Amino acid sequence: MSEVSTMLEANAQYAERFTKGDLPMPPARRLVVLTCMDARIDPAKAFGLEEGDAHVIRNAGGRASDDALRSLVISTQLLGTRDIVVIHHTDCGMLTFRNEQLREQLRQNLGADASEVDFLPFTDLDVSVRQDMATIRSSALLPKDLAVQGFIYDVHTGQLREVS
Amino acid sequence: MSEVSTMLEANAQYAERFTKGDLPMPPARRLVVLTCMDARIDPAKAFGLEEGDAHVIRNAGGRASDDALRSLVISTQLLGTRDIVVIHHTDCGMLTFRNEQLREQLRQNLGADASEVDFLPFTDLDVSVRQDMATIRSSALLPKDLAVQGFIYDVHTGQLREVS
Repeated sequence: MSEVSTMLEANAQYAERFTKGDLPMPPARRLVVLTCMDARIDPAKAFGLEEGDAHVIRNAGGRASDDALRSLVISTQLLGTRDIVVIHHTDCGMLTFRNEQLREQLRQNLGADASEVDFLPFTDLDVSVRQDMATIRSSALLPKDLAVQGFIYDVHTGQLREVS
Repeated sequence: MSEVSTMLEANAQYAERFTKGDLPMPPARRLVVLTCMDARIDPAKAFGLEEGDAHVIRNAGGRASDDALRSLVISTQLLGTRDIVVIHHTDCGMLTFRNEQLREQLRQNLGADASEVDFLPFTDLDVSVRQDMATIRSSALLPKDLAVQGFIYDVHTGQLREVS
């Protein structure tokens, strides 16, 4: 069976038992989690989020990219969120390459020119979390009274550690 | 208790029972889900994903933004994924505003100038899914043999419907 067929079968089972069809659009806990796309992280299970609780923004690294800021503006302005947590994680793929290496790989594999693309890799997790908290706190498009906290998730233990 | 304290308490309980500390970085099912940050969607539960199975990229709308493409390049080039599913959903916040309205709100609430920002709202779900599939399929930075499929998730029934 293909991966998509497997997904559709799982979804059919989920829908059969589905009881949460009346939840409102705004997140009940007024919380946003910004984290990495990494397959080992299940934000709902690992951070205790039920359907309806929180916005979850995910990208490579959990970075406060321009697009994450776009999502945060929509979240805060239109859907009333107030708390933002930035969660990067140990053993992250973003620690394993530099822009120039990935650009060279794209040239070789696809003949593609990615010389203008910053893939936002990093070399130190505490630093990357602090950078992304600072980006969010200093954005002119986000309210100044947002609460922003940063954490590192350990994929080997399942534990969060705060970055101050 | 604050929302972040509640999250940390849930995480401590998750970590106590944690048994998945040895998963490899590449997604076992070589699958990527690109979907919306909406609080009502739990991709793991709704689409049958276990820790380690799939990359999950989420932003406002589940759009194939430049940053989603950045994440997809890292996913496909460095971590071997092959199947991409784009999942938008009913009752999406992106259907409720236009760029000019949100820009005006930001001017009034924060004195901020967002005249250069496209917040990527849409007016038709099938069209937005098709647009994002086309963006992914035509990206020079992604391999031509990726399998890309699109779906709409119904937040009232929990069901997926394919967009062809």
